[in-house]
Parts: sequence; structure tokens; C-alpha cells
Amino acid sequence: MSHRDPVLMGPGPCNPYPEVIEAYSRPVLGHLDPDFIALMDEAGDRLRTVYRTDNKLTFAVSATGSAGMEASFVNFVGPGDPVVIGVNGVFGGRMCDVAARCGAEVVRVDAPWGQPLEPQELLAAHPSPKVIAVVHAETSTGVRNDLATLGASKGDALLLADCVTSLGGIDVRIDEWGVDVAYSGTQKCLGVPPGLSPVTVSERALGRLRRMPQSWYLDYNMIAKYVTGEGARAYHHTAPISSLYGLHAGLGVLLDEGLEHSLARHQACGDALQAGLVERGFELFAAEGHRLPQLTSVWVPDERLPEGMTEADVRRALLFEYGIEIGGGLGDLAGKGWRIGLMGHTARLRNVTLLLAALDELLQ
Amino acid sequence: MSHRDPVLMGPGPCNPYPEVIEAYSRPVLGHLDPDFIALMDEAGDRLRTVYRTDNKLTFAVSATGSAGMEASFVNFVGPGDPVVIGVNGVFGGRMCDVAARCGAEVVRVDAPWGQPLEPQELLAAHPSPKVIAVVHAETSTGVRNDLATLGASKGDALLLADCVTSLGGIDVRIDEWGVDVAYSGTQKCLGVPPGLSPVTVSERALGRLRRMPQSWYLDYNMIAKYVTGEGARAYHHTAPISSLYGLHAGLGVLLDEGLEHSLARHQACGDALQAGLVERGFELFAAEGHRLPQLTSVWVPDERLPEGMTEADVRRALLFEYGIEIGGGLGDLAGKGWRIGLMGHTARLRNVTLLLAALDELLQ
Repeated sequence: MSHRDPVLMGPGPCNPYPEVIEAYSRPVLGHLDPDFIALMDEAGDRLRTVYRTDNKLTFAVSATGSAGMEASFVNFVGPGDPVVIGVNGVFGGRMCDVAARCGAEVVRVDAPWGQPLEPQELLAAHPSPKVIAVVHAETSTGVRNDLATLGASKGDALLLADCVTSLGGIDVRIDEWGVDVAYSGTQKCLGVPPGLSPVTVSERALGRLRRMPQSWYLDYNMIAKYVTGEGARAYHHTAPISSLYGLHAGLGVLLDEGLEHSLARHQACGDALQAGLVERGFELFAAEGHRLPQLTSVWVPDERLPEGMTEADVRRALLFEYGIEIGGGLGDLAGKGWRIGLMGHTARLRNVTLLLAALDELLQ
Repeated sequence: MSHRDPVLMGPGPCNPYPEVIEAYSRPVLGHLDPDFIALMDEAGDRLRTVYRTDNKLTFAVSATGSAGMEASFVNFVGPGDPVVIGVNGVFGGRMCDVAARCGAEVVRVDAPWGQPLEPQELLAAHPSPKVIAVVHAETSTGVRNDLATLGASKGDALLLADCVTSLGGIDVRIDEWGVDVAYSGTQKCLGVPPGLSPVTVSERALGRLRRMPQSWYLDYNMIAKYVTGEGARAYHHTAPISSLYGLHAGLGVLLDEGLEHSLARHQACGDALQAGLVERGFELFAAEGHRLPQLTSVWVPDERLPEGMTEADVRRALLFEYGIEIGGGLGDLAGKGWRIGLMGHTARLRNVTLLLAALDELLQ
């Protein structure tokens, strides 16, 4: 089949770095081949740098970000465990669903979509939660939630953070902030196709691993014997070799650029896009001071649309006439706004220039 | 890093078809892009052909074969459900572990490793099992287990089959044999890198889907709304785009060759290898009449090894001097034998010739 090459400015996947695609084409090695083990170890080191952590158990779960979410709950939460979950978007809601399937007593703390969660409300929601769980960067709204305050006051609870859209795009400080369990995805600010979920687990959390989690595939006790460095590596499941080449290469690009430079690039792109949208009279959805640079949510009022066109028609025109993908809104923003991603290799000023110019043409 | 390109003759992964690697390098599309949905649908059609089924719910789980196993249990088995599981190798044992984590009452029926399971023993093991589960091709021993007899006499039970190593390598007839739930892996006889698990579910099994399985990530109710063809596709999780390109391409290679031709090629390669090993005085591990062509297990007696070398030393010499990976034994065969795969693109007579010649040199 012929194959388009869209500029991926939706909520993920982003365009992968060219080096990642090159890595995917490398010869496949066996999952116990010493060269592959070395590459996996190096990918772990690179993840520790990006997560800013010394956590030994830092690796890529062999499935997408949502499986990283599931792994982060099933390994630490069992029947009757009180779990406080902040919800101000789709992914906080998903956490509640996943925790409930572990039998948790879910204590849900809502904030309006587009607004950040209030850390004090989360801390006051239960006297002795086993876990406090929060989405760091809500992909459904473009809002950043505070983790540091939660980490400083979590008490005996484990702090669990969804870093799917934050990692590599905004500052993530696992050790400094006291995050115990975190997961991410490859297809956002790491610039790699979807397929893996980089996770990290603190020493404190390791001591609370469930011995027999309900998931065999995501059982960290068993996986640790394969992915961490002591002695012979015990086969658990066949690692997704080529996808790990891609992650390893993407992290290499990120660290060659420098983590601070990558974060600054994401920030500069997001600032330019948001300023351009405001300049054109659009209203941003996420609360000021809590906006993500890598994911911008914006209202698209009917009066800005050409006669007879819906916002979905404009997105289709962008995709098929310009080869640019942006995302539709969710929740209140469904049918009334867009989500625009600037992540990984997509986070380039030229893409901001392109999208704003294309919108000027389409909406004139 | 420099990158070796071993001939992968272990128990999987195999060498991928060149077209698969090319497909991995295609531009990434969004997971809701109509071109990607069309590719995913076509991959489903191709899977139906290879599985010989009309099952509507036939798709690739977004994780490796072991996640396909877990999906096949969590969607159909709950606390207290009696599940009969045949065990004559590692993967039957893994099924027991996975089923137990669903709360199943596991009724385990063992056969000696290297021997096939006895269908009548499985059928007699419980008066009204909810599921009867069997590994079609035991990768740990090289034994083929019978499915057709179980399907014909399963009664009200669902027949669940592990087709990880069988699909594309030996005959798999889902509809004709009455298999209700099956899963496979990409990295065996489909000639694709590891990462996805092609699964199929009969109409009969669809009627027994658990409404709220303990896994969110593997919830077939939710995934079906994304992967099957009715109306708008509901986002569940971000599909692993590039891996699906690879699977789609690998299935294309297989079907261009023709399913019967691919099976015959696997058979011819296995026959040649097994004859060559017997000719050299080696004893095959798997019972005659039940041997897989794509996975050969063989005893390696000490007297066949060069002075001072273990079987592991020979495997290392094959890997580092010849660039050939073969697998070590498991169970009784651990340290005493090998497992040699001829799967997917690796299933070529030239690889049989190469391995036998290399062994002649190393073991002379």
C-alpha cells in the first residue's frame, strides 16, 4: 500500500526520531543474547537519567502505556486497599477503573477538567491510603498536576504517577519529588513509536510488592529476574526486541541533545503555539499556570469555522489536504475543541509555523 | 553499537522476513487514522486466513504471546471456575499459573515431557469444566498435542489453545476443530519480531465474555470496540503502530507464498534437520509421531561433546564463531540437550545445511 507520512500533532503518537526508525531495522537478536541484554541494560540506564532516579527497577514493560498503568496498580494494590485517585481527565478516570479491578477501595478526588488537582484535597481524602495516584500530565486536557507537594506529605502511602505524556517533555523528578511508582509511554515526548511502557519503582515500593499479583504478564517479581542485573537472566516472556532497539535509540537521541535542552525545546514549541493561537483569538482550555507545552487544548467556537464546516471537518482537511494530524477534544471539549501535541521529534518550531499557517488558510 | 546478525535457530524469535523489517520503517500513522484502521482490518483478515476461521473477533493483542495467554484466561475465567489444563511442558505449567491468578479451580492433567497429552484424560478430568486448555505446540519440548479430539468432545466447555509456536508452522484449524479461544505470537512461524499476540475468539466464546475482567488492558469487550468494524472506532489504548505494520507485512509474505506452501516448507526443514541429527547419532527428545517440524528437541550426550566442553560451550561457539543461535534444553533436557527452531524466515534448507555442517566441525 502507498503510505502517507503525516506530521503527527495529535495527543500521541508523535513522529519518531529518524534514528529510532533506523534502529527498528537492525537484525533481531535473541532475548537472552548477551548483546541484547547489554542493550536492555543501557536502555535502563538511559531511562534512569530521564526519570532522574537511581531506582534499580527501571525498565520498559512489554506493552503500551496503559499496560504500564495496570502494572503500577496490580503489583501494589489488592482487595480492600484504600487508594486515593485524582481525576481531572480521562486518564485519572482510567486509573479508577484499573484500581477497582484490583479490588481496591477507590477514593476518587475530582477537579474540573482543565483545572489542576488540589494536592491538599488528595492528602485529606483518606486517613491512611495505601496509594495516592495522580496523572502528571493529563493528555485529555493539557493540564499539569503537582507531584512534589504530594511526595512531601504522602506519609506512609506510595505515590503513583502517570508520566505517559510528561516524561521527556516537562520536568520529571522521581527521586527528588518522592514518587514511588511511575509509568510512561514511548510515543509521546520520547519520540518513539507506541508499544512499550517505561516504568520505575522506588526501593520503598519494592518492599511492598505483592507476591502474587493478579497479572502474570505484569508480575514485577518475575520480570525483575529478567531485566535487572544480578546473575543469569531468567526468561519470563520474550522481550519485544525491535521495539526495545527503538526505545534505546530514542533515549539516545534525547540524551545526546541533553535532557534540559529537550525540555526547553518542548517548552519553546508549546509557548509559540499557544501564543499563536491566542493571537488568533482562540481561547485555551487548560488553566493558566498549569498548561503543558507538549499538549495544548483549545476551544474552537463555531464562529471561527468556515460556513458549513464542523471542527471535525477542519481536522479532516488538515489530515488529507495538509498531511497534519491533530486530535479532537474529549469531555466538554468533544466536538468543540482540539488537542494539539508537540512531542518528541514533532516538537519543532517549523511544525508550529506550519500548523498556524495551515489554520490561517483553512479558517480565513 | 555494532550489531551482529545471527541466524536465529532457537525456540524464537526467528529471523523476520525482509519485508517485515521494511514495513517497520514506514512513517507512523495515528491510531485513529483511517489508513491505519484499514491496515489493521486487513491484518485481521489475513489472521483469519492463517487461523482458518471466520471468527469476527480476530486481532493482535498489543503485547507478546504470554499476554495473549493471559487475555485468553482473564476474559473467560473467574473465581471458582473449573479449568482443565494439560501440562507436558513449560507453557502448560504457565497456563496453570495464569488460571490460578484468575481464581480458577485448576484441574491439572500431566503427561511426561516429550510425550503428547492424552485427550481422553483431559476430557475425563472434570464433569463440567468451564474451559479445557491445551498448548498445541509445546515450545519447551517440541511436541504437538491433539486439538481436534478435544474440540469434538468438549461438551459445554470452551476449548482454549496456545498456538504460539504452531500458527503458520503446522496446520491450525480453529473452526473445523472447534477451538473457541486461541492466541499466538508474532516471533515464531509468522516471521515477525516479538511484540504482538494474534488472538481469535469464537462466537460461542463471545457469548461468555466476562463483563468486567480483572485486566483493563486485555478487556476484550472494550478492545472489540476499537478493532472490529462497526461504526466509529472507540479509542481504548494506543495501538503499537509499527509492530502492526510488521505483522501485516509478515502475514502478507506468508499468504503470498501460500499457507500450504509455508506449512510444507516448515515440514521439509524440520524433516531434514531431524534426519540429519539422527544420522549423526543424536536421539530426538519428542515422541515419534508427535514431533514438531519447527521446533526440534534433541539429547546431547556428554560423549558427543569435545573434551572439556559442555553443551552450553557448544551453543556459545555456535553463536560467537558461527553467528548461529540455538536454544538450551528445559526440564529434563536442561544442560543435556538443545532446542532448535526452524520458524518463519529461518525455515530454510540452507539453515539446516549450515547448522549440521557447523556441528560437524565443532563436534568432530
